[in-house]
Amino acid sequence: MLLKVTFLGTSGTVPAPNRNPSAILIQFEGIRLLFDCGEGTQRQMMIAKTGFKIHSVFITHLHTDHFIGIFGLIETMSLNERTERLRVFVPKENVDFMKTLFRMFGYHNLNYPIEVYGLKDGDEVDFGKFKILAFKTDHIVPSLGYALIERDRPGKFDRAKAEALGIPPGPLYSKLVRGEAIEINGRIITPDMVVGPKRRGRKVVYTGDTRPTERTIEVARDADLLIHDASFTSDLQDWAIQTKHSTAREAAEIAKRANVRQLILTHISARYSKDATPLLEEAKEIFENVVVAEDFMSIEVKYRD
Amino acid sequence: MLLKVTFLGTSGTVPAPNRNPSAILIQFEGIRLLFDCGEGTQRQMMIAKTGFKIHSVFITHLHTDHFIGIFGLIETMSLNERTERLRVFVPKENVDFMKTLFRMFGYHNLNYPIEVYGLKDGDEVDFGKFKILAFKTDHIVPSLGYALIERDRPGKFDRAKAEALGIPPGPLYSKLVRGEAIEINGRIITPDMVVGPKRRGRKVVYTGDTRPTERTIEVARDADLLIHDASFTSDLQDWAIQTKHSTAREAAEIAKRANVRQLILTHISARYSKDATPLLEEAKEIFENVVVAEDFMSIEVKYRD
Repeated sequence: MLLKVTFLGTSGTVPAPNRNPSAILIQFEGIRLLFDCGEGTQRQMMIAKTGFKIHSVFITHLHTDHFIGIFGLIETMSLNERTERLRVFVPKENVDFMKTLFRMFGYHNLNYPIEVYGLKDGDEVDFGKFKILAFKTDHIVPSLGYALIERDRPGKFDRAKAEALGIPPGPLYSKLVRGEAIEINGRIITPDMVVGPKRRGRKVVYTGDTRPTERTIEVARDADLLIHDASFTSDLQDWAIQTKHSTAREAAEIAKRANVRQLILTHISARYSKDATPLLEEAKEIFENVVVAEDFMSIEVKYRD
Repeated sequence: MLLKVTFLGTSGTVPAPNRNPSAILIQFEGIRLLFDCGEGTQRQMMIAKTGFKIHSVFITHLHTDHFIGIFGLIETMSLNERTERLRVFVPKENVDFMKTLFRMFGYHNLNYPIEVYGLKDGDEVDFGKFKILAFKTDHIVPSLGYALIERDRPGKFDRAKAEALGIPPGPLYSKLVRGEAIEINGRIITPDMVVGPKRRGRKVVYTGDTRPTERTIEVARDADLLIHDASFTSDLQDWAIQTKHSTAREAAEIAKRANVRQLILTHISARYSKDATPLLEEAKEIFENVVVAEDFMSIEVKYRD
């Protein structure tokens, strides 16, 4: 199952010549989800050749640099003759605002329906093989982070053991993998006799703009990838507190405490647009496996086993 | 007097990897005016290093690809601690829409005031040395084109003649240039004796999205620069009529009939984003001095005399 994260915009509030405002595309097999959609995202998608088959859009909060690109994207998808509905998820406090804007822009007359849903902490959107969990973050307006959580996969099937137990290859193997017991020559075979323990699915967590929070640690526990606000270096700690962002050090502390596999710093303030090494260096003191996001950076999240 | 036109976005409705949606910056000496402000304009301004000292914004019509970039731009100018008011001009039918959006986005709480004005055909905005004339165009929503019209300059002062007439250099020269008569040794010297005829100011005309119109010809008469919608080649003539755009041929016909000095084709459909020569070739058959706009192209409009 392909799980790929593509950074379409990695700037802070103000873009830079080399950084577009926030947007992250996550592809899970054939399903493409967009997280935030800052100004210019549709053009970034063209440059990155991602295509426009976006299933749903998840907005972390209604600051312009995180959502104003949705208008151009929606209209381009309509000109591209999209017919499938588009689901747009926003913090529940912003549903009316978003719906009002879409009505003002005449989006009830497009080729395809747009559905706006409000989410709050703990809400889940089910996609079958994975779900998106919304979790509360701490910014100056209502805000959510999102976690993509893959369902646990069945344990490994021990074919040698199965053969030794006289189970013929075929549908009985599948039954055992699905967790059902079978009977062979009058003997009950339970799944645990031939199937290993369930293997944990992958997890990717994106905070959007936020102060560091205990809730992020809880949600990001053992995640494969944590994408965290790291707007500033620690010398701007006060400014980070005032504007409700995080420093690179704080992001690294969250990554360490949550025991994640990899940390990616994003929402990079224009101060560091040319040289983000100060952010990287300060994070690395706390947490080793960290990179600073760049526009068009793409990462495949692989299974650990 | 510097008069410089910088193309910040030259795409049609849908951007392309190499073309951003519509925006043109016109600089007249220290005054910078923005005409249209498509998605991503603020970042184009950063790349082009134009700075953010925009005096006023003139929107041709309220299609997303012509105005949605104004939100990010307005917020960045606020973060840059702008204090001067910003004037935003839109077709008069759209004043309430624009004001409602600005209120929804909380722009009454910025560091600087934003004033929204509605314009209709024939309205003029005075900038001293030049004015902006709004003129009706023909698109599928209320739409205006804009002409920058420089005031006529005084005629050339003939210094040799003035000396022959015994006029001492200094304030009397200035009086004559300003059009006042003077007296030297009991003789009345009128300006026409030493000052040539007034020299016409420069004129730059931008249509925005439109079908070709007689009104454009009237306004663009003898213009130094006509920037005209040329979305398509003539094989898409029917589509141009249906979507209320112009073909390159039609733009060239307008340029020829208006006797302009130079024509620039813009609003280039994504079909031609990689190769715009079909547009150029078809226009050149009608009007020789024509170029296809490209993002970041900058043209200085010089005096003819």
